[in-house]
Amino acid sequence: MKRDEFDSWSRERLAVVEAALDRWVPAEAPAGLAESMRYGVLDGGKRLRPLLVLSAAEAVGAHDSEAALRAACAVELIHAYSLIHDDMPCMDDDVLRRGKPTVHVQFGEAQAMLAGDAMQALAFEVLTPDDDSVPLVLQARLCGLLARAAGQHGMAGGQAIDLASVGRPLDEQALCDMHRRKTGALLQASVMMGAACGDTTAVARDALSEYGAALGLAFQVVDDILDATQASDTLGKTAGKDADNNKPTYVTVLGLEAAQRRAQALREQAQAALARSGLHNAAWLSLLADKVVERDS
Amino acid sequence: MKRDEFDSWSRERLAVVEAALDRWVPAEAPAGLAESMRYGVLDGGKRLRPLLVLSAAEAVGAHDSEAALRAACAVELIHAYSLIHDDMPCMDDDVLRRGKPTVHVQFGEAQAMLAGDAMQALAFEVLTPDDDSVPLVLQARLCGLLARAAGQHGMAGGQAIDLASVGRPLDEQALCDMHRRKTGALLQASVMMGAACGDTTAVARDALSEYGAALGLAFQVVDDILDATQASDTLGKTAGKDADNNKPTYVTVLGLEAAQRRAQALREQAQAALARSGLHNAAWLSLLADKVVERDS
Repeated sequence: MKRDEFDSWSRERLAVVEAALDRWVPAEAPAGLAESMRYGVLDGGKRLRPLLVLSAAEAVGAHDSEAALRAACAVELIHAYSLIHDDMPCMDDDVLRRGKPTVHVQFGEAQAMLAGDAMQALAFEVLTPDDDSVPLVLQARLCGLLARAAGQHGMAGGQAIDLASVGRPLDEQALCDMHRRKTGALLQASVMMGAACGDTTAVARDALSEYGAALGLAFQVVDDILDATQASDTLGKTAGKDADNNKPTYVTVLGLEAAQRRAQALREQAQAALARSGLHNAAWLSLLADKVVERDS
Repeated sequence: MKRDEFDSWSRERLAVVEAALDRWVPAEAPAGLAESMRYGVLDGGKRLRPLLVLSAAEAVGAHDSEAALRAACAVELIHAYSLIHDDMPCMDDDVLRRGKPTVHVQFGEAQAMLAGDAMQALAFEVLTPDDDSVPLVLQARLCGLLARAAGQHGMAGGQAIDLASVGRPLDEQALCDMHRRKTGALLQASVMMGAACGDTTAVARDALSEYGAALGLAFQVVDDILDATQASDTLGKTAGKDADNNKPTYVTVLGLEAAQRRAQALREQAQAALARSGLHNAAWLSLLADKVVERDS
């Protein structure tokens, strides 16, 4: 029952997100930039980060919040830019993403680099509308959360560790540190940005932060499991790539069964944090934690 | 006399900027990222953008403003990241910058891309301190100005036009449009961010906006003149590169003498805007307009 309600709610909210991205990723940017940016972010992806933002906003009573919608689009823009850059030949050199040729394959490397650069800036533009639709104080808080999640202590830092780890054995602690930054920081920030759109107690914020951290790590553990067990056409990207590239994953470090147990333990940790939050509307966040662990693509 | 005073003021202020950059571009970022980021932004460059921020802040009475110092560092981080990405093989493929090997030559392409990505995020981190040193309302305004200057309507958009213009004749209007975005937007934003740190009238803001636009374009016209007339060792970067790459410049489109006249006309436009601003402390901004046009490197 809850799942049906969630599916219907998330379909409706994601349609709003898609329409907003379509509006904010401008068709009139110059010299092919609009085309490559729109190709890189529209019509694709599971939109987990926007759903986390919007579910966290619901949990703290910020329904239909313009700020939450902008935060949802901003985190997705940062995520999409990171995929474009990560796929480039000097990084993972991947040719397939979301079942389509990657941006650099479609538009060339220079355009792909610029599209990613412009999308990172656009994320902060989206967070700082110059009308009065989002209070300036909240704009500042959202920019601060997003910048820290995207930067050297977050996503970019995690990618640097990833780059340096090729062909090197990492222990579980180092692998966990890498993924907490590379994928976890932005997932956790999605939760915290949604929560910033409403009123929360310090207890709820701490609990949501722990929920976001556990969910973020669970997401990556499951990603590694799927990369080792699923075919490329199910994933919409090249499977087995990390192992082929001699990159450490939770499966290579822990083994498949222990990785699966780890994912379940992180799901339980996320649910326990929600239970402790004192929030009465955390049902969507709870379902998202389940879905992250149960997904098959 | 004024020039001596300015030189002494700017030396002192730039020392503060260098110390702040040294503090904010962290030595402890993971896996070589700190090293490549610091290499790309510390100890180099004319620091024109920080001087514009700080001079505009002085003009509006915001002396010793923490916000202005952070804005000065943030615009320089955006500028430095754009140089790192612009120098990469898929863009201008340049090996020399500020008299040193470019970041991708020194650290590899992947690291250079990540360093640039992390520096863009860091710019917004610097603008959003989580202590109370910069009012949240001002943080939001500064983030908005910087994001718009860096993104598809500003710097990244200009670079896309630049990329598309190789080997194609551009008329003066198109060349001007490209440079207003590529270099002009961030220079103009530097002025407006400095001005945002103090109190201004609408008249003063409009005047400063025109000053920033004229100075921004003058800077690029002079850049093109120097690229055509100076040797690489004077410039600290590869001279004659644009003409070699068959890129349109003010010198190839207007001819050398007309380009020089254009630079003077833009200087006069900048000075006239300052005179109209009603600001009593605009001496440093006035000197910067002179210096931009008179510089020989």
